[in-house]
Amino acid sequence: QRAHRIAVIPGDGIGKEVVPAGLDVLRAAADAFDLRLEFEEFDFACAAYWQAHGAMLPQDWQTILQGFDAIYFGAVGWPEVVPDHVSLWGSLIQFRRVFDQYVNLRPCRLMPGVRGPLAGRGPGDIDFLVVRENTEGEYSSVGGRIFEGTERETVLQETVMTRIGVDRVLRYAFEQARRRPERHLTSATKSNGISISMPYWDERVRAIAAEYPDVTWDQYHIDALAAHFVLNPDRFDVVVASNLFGDILSDLGPACTGTLGIAPSANINPERRHPSLFEPVHGSAPDIAGRGVANPIGQIWCGSMMLEHLGHPAAAAHVLAAIESVLAEASPRTLTPDLHGTGTTAGLGKAIAERV
Amino acid sequence: QRAHRIAVIPGDGIGKEVVPAGLDVLRAAADAFDLRLEFEEFDFACAAYWQAHGAMLPQDWQTILQGFDAIYFGAVGWPEVVPDHVSLWGSLIQFRRVFDQYVNLRPCRLMPGVRGPLAGRGPGDIDFLVVRENTEGEYSSVGGRIFEGTERETVLQETVMTRIGVDRVLRYAFEQARRRPERHLTSATKSNGISISMPYWDERVRAIAAEYPDVTWDQYHIDALAAHFVLNPDRFDVVVASNLFGDILSDLGPACTGTLGIAPSANINPERRHPSLFEPVHGSAPDIAGRGVANPIGQIWCGSMMLEHLGHPAAAAHVLAAIESVLAEASPRTLTPDLHGTGTTAGLGKAIAERV
Ligand SMILES: CC(C)[C@H](C(=O)O)[C@@H](O)C(=O)O
Ligand SMILES: CC(C)[C@H](C(=O)O)[C@@H](O)C(=O)O
Repeated sequence: QRAHRIAVIPGDGIGKEVVPAGLDVLRAAADAFDLRLEFEEFDFACAAYWQAHGAMLPQDWQTILQGFDAIYFGAVGWPEVVPDHVSLWGSLIQFRRVFDQYVNLRPCRLMPGVRGPLAGRGPGDIDFLVVRENTEGEYSSVGGRIFEGTERETVLQETVMTRIGVDRVLRYAFEQARRRPERHLTSATKSNGISISMPYWDERVRAIAAEYPDVTWDQYHIDALAAHFVLNPDRFDVVVASNLFGDILSDLGPACTGTLGIAPSANINPERRHPSLFEPVHGSAPDIAGRGVANPIGQIWCGSMMLEHLGHPAAAAHVLAAIESVLAEASPRTLTPDLHGTGTTAGLGKAIAERV
Repeated sequence: QRAHRIAVIPGDGIGKEVVPAGLDVLRAAADAFDLRLEFEEFDFACAAYWQAHGAMLPQDWQTILQGFDAIYFGAVGWPEVVPDHVSLWGSLIQFRRVFDQYVNLRPCRLMPGVRGPLAGRGPGDIDFLVVRENTEGEYSSVGGRIFEGTERETVLQETVMTRIGVDRVLRYAFEQARRRPERHLTSATKSNGISISMPYWDERVRAIAAEYPDVTWDQYHIDALAAHFVLNPDRFDVVVASNLFGDILSDLGPACTGTLGIAPSANINPERRHPSLFEPVHGSAPDIAGRGVANPIGQIWCGSMMLEHLGHPAAAAHVLAAIESVLAEASPRTLTPDLHGTGTTAGLGKAIAERV
């Protein structure tokens, strides 16, 4: 069996703490399932590469990373040193664009032992997948400013949707829906207010839906959809959304299940022409960095998604089951402070690695 | 004392049911506080004007409505007959633009007797105000489609922010914050992803904040902010947001307090050059229309906001207190089915009118 080559980018802040815990679990999974994973670490981050070179990445980053099968990413951002839009457009958003990771997958589920903010909901009640378009839409770099510094100052920013870009993420989402028991897809729109781009999105949803007669679908305006995430989160199965709407929904969904600190995300190039990237939804959290108490479960859960992507669904499911079993046990000595425990990042990582 | 002239537009669906209940309460308030309110009703709606004339409004609507002190609006929309973007851009969004109602105010609070979806929260815990920019931003009609019907098909939609448009809504929000006990303002941004318009928004927030040294402020990216609405809704006082972000937050906020069906909104032209418009957050709800069971509290609460705008804060507070007292009493015979009662629209309206 050929080895999988994984580029490891811990990044900044708690990224540097949770990634080692994630690697412990991946090594345990490799042992248990007889997989060959080769890790190579890169110091691309505000706190390392930027400080030495004044850039987030070396000029030849694309050549360097292209040879890997996947990128295991912690978190990037250190706003005191580098403004967020510089660090993120200089790394994460670059990767998504240049490596054409046009699908951002974010599972959202109530986990055992995790207290959520919603009254009367238990594990199993909420379990859906947000499929976010990850390269175009509202996140464009097209636009600018005119009449600067005057009363007439005007700023324009373009939302860009392409047939190719919209159709491919919709097809991916319908394929995901087809594989799940409920076979239902929900599309996020706002065609009653955003009157050019969103009606186009709706039109493509209708067109692609015709290719998937076995999948039922509906659509909600983003304002109503956000409300339903809070009021009726059990209603959803696969939710497909533009870049911005997907960003909002994939934070809101995990907030509703109390899993914002432990939710994973996968930035995927489905054709495997470029490496895909796996990162927790949480950021570098400068406020708690350096204390060794960050929760590594998001990073570990990302490892499960990466194993799945690399073609090892059994190992992926096993890692997820290990996370759930440690959470269900709810030992305060093991869990980190965010879960009302007294444990450490490394300790929680080891507990899950042992279970694997 | 001069009479206030109010244009009444019940609109479609449940708008036609809740507006009469709202008028009952306004008449009671006028009696109790010795105010002169003159109502004139207009049939602008899909179900009336459109069906007779094929347009949402007569050509001279601006002249007709300009003479009024306020517009008391129900809801518009009947998607089976007129597509939503046509009916809304043909009426509500027209009013906001042409009458320069550049502030959309949406209070969000836990009300006595109303069950919310969040665990462990009671009345008084959540009480904030969303100030939404209401004329520009992401809701533009600038853009279009190129290479239609081909692989290269591309759709562009412009977000437009102007110095005048951004500054005036920010000042309004800071003024609101200044009048409240906490004196705190939160700005919704997404400058880490939407890299041209949102950094501009942030820049203007910093500039205007300097004029209000007595108001503290912070900012959150919209994804994190949506999560905090669910996790820490007690943290907010005044939240200011662009047109789209304000739309999302002002549905999400009331969803978190269980008041989505009863939340009011005010579309305000602060300079009073044009009439302001008061409408509930809910829509025309074709699914329950015609049965006389729609909850009129959103419409009645709008009446309270309208009285405030017309310069009668005591009457406004009195109407709100009457709503709260009827809700707190929680008589199942009075409350409508959405509040687990068996009452009717008219009955609940009368109960509140009597209390006033
Ligand atoms: C109906 C729609 C166009 C409108 C908006 O998005 O502004 C509504 O959602 C609102 O919030 O008033
Ligand atoms: C950091 C930011 C640019 C990023 C995004 O908006 O895509 C993040 O919120 C995410 O969801 O991955």
